[in-house]
Amino acid sequence: MNAALDDTHNPALQSWVASANAPDTDFPIQNLPFGRFRTEAEPDWRIGVAIGNQVLDLRAAKLIDSSDMNRLMRLLPGVRRSVRQAISEGLRVGSAQQAVFKAALHAQSDVAMGLPCQIGDYTDFYTSVHHATTIGKQLRPDNPLLPNYKWVPIGYHGRASSIIPSGQGFRRPKGQTKAPDQDAPTLGPCRRLDYELELAMLVGRPNALGEPIAMADAEDHVFGVSLFNDWSARDIQAWEYQPLGPFLSKNFASTLSPWVVTLDALAPFRVPFTRPAGDPEPLAYLDAPANRAQGAISIELEVWLQTAQMRAAGHAGDRISRSNYRDAYWTVAQLVAHHTVNGCNLRAGDLLGSGTLSGPEPAQGGSLMELSAGGKKPFALSSGETRAWLEDGDTIILRGYCQQPGFRRIGFGECRGTVLPA
Amino acid sequence: MNAALDDTHNPALQSWVASANAPDTDFPIQNLPFGRFRTEAEPDWRIGVAIGNQVLDLRAAKLIDSSDMNRLMRLLPGVRRSVRQAISEGLRVGSAQQAVFKAALHAQSDVAMGLPCQIGDYTDFYTSVHHATTIGKQLRPDNPLLPNYKWVPIGYHGRASSIIPSGQGFRRPKGQTKAPDQDAPTLGPCRRLDYELELAMLVGRPNALGEPIAMADAEDHVFGVSLFNDWSARDIQAWEYQPLGPFLSKNFASTLSPWVVTLDALAPFRVPFTRPAGDPEPLAYLDAPANRAQGAISIELEVWLQTAQMRAAGHAGDRISRSNYRDAYWTVAQLVAHHTVNGCNLRAGDLLGSGTLSGPEPAQGGSLMELSAGGKKPFALSSGETRAWLEDGDTIILRGYCQQPGFRRIGFGECRGTVLPA
Repeated sequence: MNAALDDTHNPALQSWVASANAPDTDFPIQNLPFGRFRTEAEPDWRIGVAIGNQVLDLRAAKLIDSSDMNRLMRLLPGVRRSVRQAISEGLRVGSAQQAVFKAALHAQSDVAMGLPCQIGDYTDFYTSVHHATTIGKQLRPDNPLLPNYKWVPIGYHGRASSIIPSGQGFRRPKGQTKAPDQDAPTLGPCRRLDYELELAMLVGRPNALGEPIAMADAEDHVFGVSLFNDWSARDIQAWEYQPLGPFLSKNFASTLSPWVVTLDALAPFRVPFTRPAGDPEPLAYLDAPANRAQGAISIELEVWLQTAQMRAAGHAGDRISRSNYRDAYWTVAQLVAHHTVNGCNLRAGDLLGSGTLSGPEPAQGGSLMELSAGGKKPFALSSGETRAWLEDGDTIILRGYCQQPGFRRIGFGECRGTVLPA
Repeated sequence: MNAALDDTHNPALQSWVASANAPDTDFPIQNLPFGRFRTEAEPDWRIGVAIGNQVLDLRAAKLIDSSDMNRLMRLLPGVRRSVRQAISEGLRVGSAQQAVFKAALHAQSDVAMGLPCQIGDYTDFYTSVHHATTIGKQLRPDNPLLPNYKWVPIGYHGRASSIIPSGQGFRRPKGQTKAPDQDAPTLGPCRRLDYELELAMLVGRPNALGEPIAMADAEDHVFGVSLFNDWSARDIQAWEYQPLGPFLSKNFASTLSPWVVTLDALAPFRVPFTRPAGDPEPLAYLDAPANRAQGAISIELEVWLQTAQMRAAGHAGDRISRSNYRDAYWTVAQLVAHHTVNGCNLRAGDLLGSGTLSGPEPAQGGSLMELSAGGKKPFALSSGETRAWLEDGDTIILRGYCQQPGFRRIGFGECRGTVLPA
């Protein structure tokens, strides 16, 4: 576990980048998330760190000598932390490097952000017991949660090629669907298009094939966390998913936010990993004292929906649900330990999705499947429109942030995607 | 469809590489499969083509100017075919390039073969109706084949990081299992380790996200075919796979053969795509006249098992099953068209597994799960040993070849892997 506080978390730190000191910024000097950006003049991706409304070009600031994010992610935890420390010191009020760093700044409004790294394999987990239970009830009213759920961090493989950066639209997918009263399936545009509120854990240090990662070392292999929307076609899923799991219902697009908030930045927001009384204890390979003490992370999450009609009216959208990552049933360390217990190798840039992060209350559903009860209960928006599923032109915006008395607020930026017609 | 014959298929062609003219070689001049090799002196991977017992270094032969296989795979079909034609002409008896090419040859016994390309996403299909039915009967005796099977080319995502080259051993995985009479699962080494006889289709030309590939164009996006063994931990699978499909039971290792036999080389072995009377016709997006006429490929497949005891006695192993790829329920073109109908993008180097290729007869099972009836009927080997599941030290060798009167035999080489202790 690496949830140790150091002077980069000091809430009294101020930056000479004035916008980083605003109380409502996502990117104070205590955050320092990593991303890839480019400018119109220079089309190659560069590694940047967000500070207030600016982005610091790490190579131009002479902090690294490469534009390869995956190489940076692979660094040993100690080296990674020394890079964080150097960035923090250079951005502090009074830094001797202010002139060099200042020349390496770009306004965020002047750059384009891409995917934060080259993604290798993408695994999606299913860590919200609330999501699993609500979905399970729709399919199996008498037996919502399967017997393995409280023992196995359920996961499956997803598609990396169709992970797209925040801001990029995607076409409504076509696929086979079959209504119960139809004799044969038909091909057509998805009619039950959904989003999924997730976090993406991005792998840093790799492990060799055949060498499991122990709980005590698991977080050293995680570079950081982004927001992630795993768009889902529920009608296609219902017809295709037996017996091997979701496929075309999930792999047409998934949207990843540009900034990777490091586990180092999240250290002040660690909370105990707890389970409801009566639930089984994790097996030994998924258990560790540090995981019990501070394995979970308190991250507030929000989903916003902006319809085309709202956009035309200059309306930023409705917040349609909220939840918190601390309610997940399995921690980051447990996902890493489980994924590798069979010897599976993780590589820098691999993405571990949390699965839909729903909270315990019905209003905390992380998908429309939950909020509209499988489409049966459309809900009203402030514009007078209603939604059971996503319509063309709908934009979904995910937001996340950490708050804790005595610390600066740490934000994740946003993860935004718009549904285009089929 | 690109199953057109040209003069590279002429069975009368002879090569000045004498070993390519032997009647039993896998690699006559009519084959020309691609792979990546390296030598002790030069550790960087190079692109080679197998010819008899030699490998031709394509860059040294001045046929290409890069060592990037994925770049070569991405070529337009016409360009790809002109490369094939140039290789064929240079290797023919009487070629003016014999001296240049001869200097670019290495004995296969002197080089190490790696994975043929950098693999992006790996998808595994389930195209053998015989496999699906036999496995389904073990789980659901009254309802072996699910209602979607004859409509949807069932597939799911697999793990690319743990695909290993032929010849590399792998450790028996550990994982959670739970017997029906146990209250709680336990962690331990897999006790029901299995192989799966598959073919791997390697993607060449990519498609853009949001742009499906039509049946008529589908094979232009496939570079070629290799042998593939998707090792499986049946006891781990049984406990983990609901509701999202197999995960740790499959992602500890999959073995890929080194040589990619191009669809161009397989043109003489195309056969009609047929279905049993009474089965539904494919939906329009999975149908095309050329697919009906010659969408399937006749590839003879064999599985050999060599135990540690056999190896110590100098015994090459027992052939434990045979099947033919023509018995698959869905063709290569249908897999590509289905995979992209929702807009999913394929990239050069992506791998589409066929799924376990079992034939209609019980002895044609492509896995031990079938041959031993789920472990209930261990079978005898020529060494006097018996097997229900794989034991430590067991080596599985997959072989494949095409035969057709009037054409040279085309072989796939072998796909070999050995189980190491947990």
